[in-house]
Amino acid sequence: MNGADAIVAAMAKNQIDICFANPGTTELALVDALDRASGIRSVLGLFEGVCTGAADGYARMLGRPAATLLHLGPGFANGIANLHNARRARSPMLNLIGDHATWHLPFDAPLASDIKSLATPVSGHYTYLGTPQLCIDETVTAIGATKSGLISTVVIPTDVQEHVFDERPGIPALSPRKIEACDGERIEAAARVLRSRKAVIILLGAGAMTSAGQRAAASIAATTRARVFAETFPARWDRGGDTPVIPRFPYFPEMGIETLKDAECVLLVGARAPIAYFGKTGLPSELVRPGTSVETLADPGGDAEGAIVALAQALGVEPIPPFAISVPSLPEHGLRLDPSVMAQTVAELMPERAIVAVEGATTTPFFFTTAAAARPHTVLTNTGGAIGQGMPVATGAALACPDRQVINLQGDGSAAYTVQALWTQARERLNVVTILCANKNYGVLRVELGRAGMNPDAPVPHRLTSLEDPALDWVGLARGFGVPAARAHTAGDLAELTRTALSQGGPFLIEAVM
Amino acid sequence: MNGADAIVAAMAKNQIDICFANPGTTELALVDALDRASGIRSVLGLFEGVCTGAADGYARMLGRPAATLLHLGPGFANGIANLHNARRARSPMLNLIGDHATWHLPFDAPLASDIKSLATPVSGHYTYLGTPQLCIDETVTAIGATKSGLISTVVIPTDVQEHVFDERPGIPALSPRKIEACDGERIEAAARVLRSRKAVIILLGAGAMTSAGQRAAASIAATTRARVFAETFPARWDRGGDTPVIPRFPYFPEMGIETLKDAECVLLVGARAPIAYFGKTGLPSELVRPGTSVETLADPGGDAEGAIVALAQALGVEPIPPFAISVPSLPEHGLRLDPSVMAQTVAELMPERAIVAVEGATTTPFFFTTAAAARPHTVLTNTGGAIGQGMPVATGAALACPDRQVINLQGDGSAAYTVQALWTQARERLNVVTILCANKNYGVLRVELGRAGMNPDAPVPHRLTSLEDPALDWVGLARGFGVPAARAHTAGDLAELTRTALSQGGPFLIEAVM
Repeated sequence: MNGADAIVAAMAKNQIDICFANPGTTELALVDALDRASGIRSVLGLFEGVCTGAADGYARMLGRPAATLLHLGPGFANGIANLHNARRARSPMLNLIGDHATWHLPFDAPLASDIKSLATPVSGHYTYLGTPQLCIDETVTAIGATKSGLISTVVIPTDVQEHVFDERPGIPALSPRKIEACDGERIEAAARVLRSRKAVIILLGAGAMTSAGQRAAASIAATTRARVFAETFPARWDRGGDTPVIPRFPYFPEMGIETLKDAECVLLVGARAPIAYFGKTGLPSELVRPGTSVETLADPGGDAEGAIVALAQALGVEPIPPFAISVPSLPEHGLRLDPSVMAQTVAELMPERAIVAVEGATTTPFFFTTAAAARPHTVLTNTGGAIGQGMPVATGAALACPDRQVINLQGDGSAAYTVQALWTQARERLNVVTILCANKNYGVLRVELGRAGMNPDAPVPHRLTSLEDPALDWVGLARGFGVPAARAHTAGDLAELTRTALSQGGPFLIEAVM
Repeated sequence: MNGADAIVAAMAKNQIDICFANPGTTELALVDALDRASGIRSVLGLFEGVCTGAADGYARMLGRPAATLLHLGPGFANGIANLHNARRARSPMLNLIGDHATWHLPFDAPLASDIKSLATPVSGHYTYLGTPQLCIDETVTAIGATKSGLISTVVIPTDVQEHVFDERPGIPALSPRKIEACDGERIEAAARVLRSRKAVIILLGAGAMTSAGQRAAASIAATTRARVFAETFPARWDRGGDTPVIPRFPYFPEMGIETLKDAECVLLVGARAPIAYFGKTGLPSELVRPGTSVETLADPGGDAEGAIVALAQALGVEPIPPFAISVPSLPEHGLRLDPSVMAQTVAELMPERAIVAVEGATTTPFFFTTAAAARPHTVLTNTGGAIGQGMPVATGAALACPDRQVINLQGDGSAAYTVQALWTQARERLNVVTILCANKNYGVLRVELGRAGMNPDAPVPHRLTSLEDPALDWVGLARGFGVPAARAHTAGDLAELTRTALSQGGPFLIEAVM
């Protein structure tokens, strides 16, 4: 057993069963160890952002970490954008990075760089495994840190990977994470506010956005003056079926301020207090009016579902009756495609328990309203704003839940960043149907230019926000990566292609031309 | 005039004439300022690694910096891998990164991150423009730093970009950089060693790899016991025509040690002392034998060409006669493609003054030997080992030198990282012919697995180094990004397609199937 074997054994013993890899020369002993190990699936990404985004999607669906295997500083750097999103999603993850041999490091070989400086902004836990004796304990510690929702990054020099142990070392197994019980005082304080008949806005974070959490929140709203909102970009949102329809807190700060203006109290249930996504002159960063009290029922990462359920019990509210599925029928076949037609089609056709990965600021928001009462499904959103997240997260979610259909409702601008994810979907035969909204521009930037009083059609702003000249041929790109694809121009095309794609299994991309 | 205008004016006044941009909401005032400014061309990349790699290629060809415009920490992070390569190439560059308004930063909005920690490993100069009053001076200082071959990264909060100046501020122009004269003592010391008839290996760095520099080195070798080598991965290498043929120092450390074994002195002319690219157990990091002396004639980044020319003068050596062009004729039409056939075809068909961007460890080395005496051309290599460099560098070189043909001799594995560069080539109608070596694996990793005694055909190593299942369709991918493309199976196909592509102008991709 060598150092690499020990690290891999520590992973396998602690429920890490998949590794999204894009290795190089300094990771070969780990590649070899993955071959000898059983129980860890190795999945190749052609670009590191695919690996880190897929690990994020995997963690969001299963609540436990995947590993990534990345090549030195530059390879890791290619994964940072989706690690940023994963950090905002509180997704646990274990990144393994190979490094030059300890004795070679001082010579500043071409691929050497300051990995720690690159890694710390996106890593809750960082370790450099400088000696073989540290391999096992430090790897297990790093995996332990993921149990609090952290990203752990472990750098392993090649000589440590290759070190052969004289005796087969023991590999400790971590005990399951104890979830902290929700805080009785906080529940009592929240209950007092709600009983006082104040105008309360309950803001749910992803942890409370399960069916039970949302049912509890809705039952509280039904018998108090509270209104319930979902955080704008949840890591995961279970919706549809008998789950109550809960609106999403608005993205634009003006609308957020409007939503909050009559609130006397904002009650946070696993969500952060609402702030502007971007600071805009003349608008405050904090959207909650001064004078409005803010109470925290559960911290982000805490047991938000348990807290809101306990609060409903403390208030003695009646459970609400199950909601009924209500989906608008398919749009007229002849209609041209627009975001609303697309949302309607997906809402109608997606099968029960679909996982819907959405990314695209101007094309996807319709889905949240249109599909709110569709068949039960889970939505994954872009939590950190680093675009190029949708395709990789869809890939990881499909590997996490092979029995569920994944639908990636995807803007074209963001798709171009990590389009290599399609190849992994093809290789692993994943049930991911991508509906690519080809509106041929960075739409949100054109909106924001207008909001800032600039002209989006002036030559340079136009040239830097338009994806025309030439238009991307998404059918060609998808097929180039091995994913069958077709183009939809009308609502009828889209419905037919979506039905076909869903029925045949495996990956498929539909370019929805707008 | 606002802060953004002032920054753009400082760029324009100091010879920055192009900006490779992938902006977001926090860079819109800069986008707007670029629209108002004259003399700066804004070029959109669909992925940030395209922008930073293109800026590297631009700088290598013109010896002055391009700007990039990138979106916050995650957008910048996507550009790090090619910044790593640019840093190793000593390419000057000015990165502009927008940031949240200073007053919004404390609220840790979704896209906030520690930009400084991400930027410092690849930035020789880093500035946060915290107040509008700093805009101009700090931008000019940052541009000044690029004159020493540094990458300058400047972070500009939106409120600083948007600050309106009461009075139009003055914009200083930097004086041209004084190139330090070469060091007379070093020249005298080197001359003494060479006159002593010691066995000297002269190792040239990119700065000495001009025609004049190589002619001087070859003339020294002709009249002393010195042998001349080119560093393995030069930022730029002018070759062919009447330039002497100089061999490349080997990549594999065993071969490097063999090359150096009889040397009594190694003379560095703008090159670093040779070290192993990766540390390998049983082999030293430093390839120069203990006991062999190492003399430095010019530091990397110094006036290496001037130094070697001055050394030749000090030694009083005769200029060598001009070399003659000698290119092997085209390979037999019916031959299957392999790296040697490809190299031969390019060497024969490339026009005078072609720029050849090479990337791909197993497919491109043949080109260095085969094309050594071809028509005059300039080679750009991957200086830092972060793959995904070839296509972006080719893009930037084509924008720098619109009157020269660019040929990108490109491995498939590395092409997949930054394939979005093809779209920029299409949009800007660049004369880049890509010859894509589709050998369908990460060849160098398979070689390194073998060298390390591991089995590249074991299931996991095979799966993580093979690009089959499915094979990438590069013709489809190129066309998807708007670049015409075709497939070559034989030497005849390749020659015909290369001729056609070169004659028609604009971008073209040839998938060379191996």
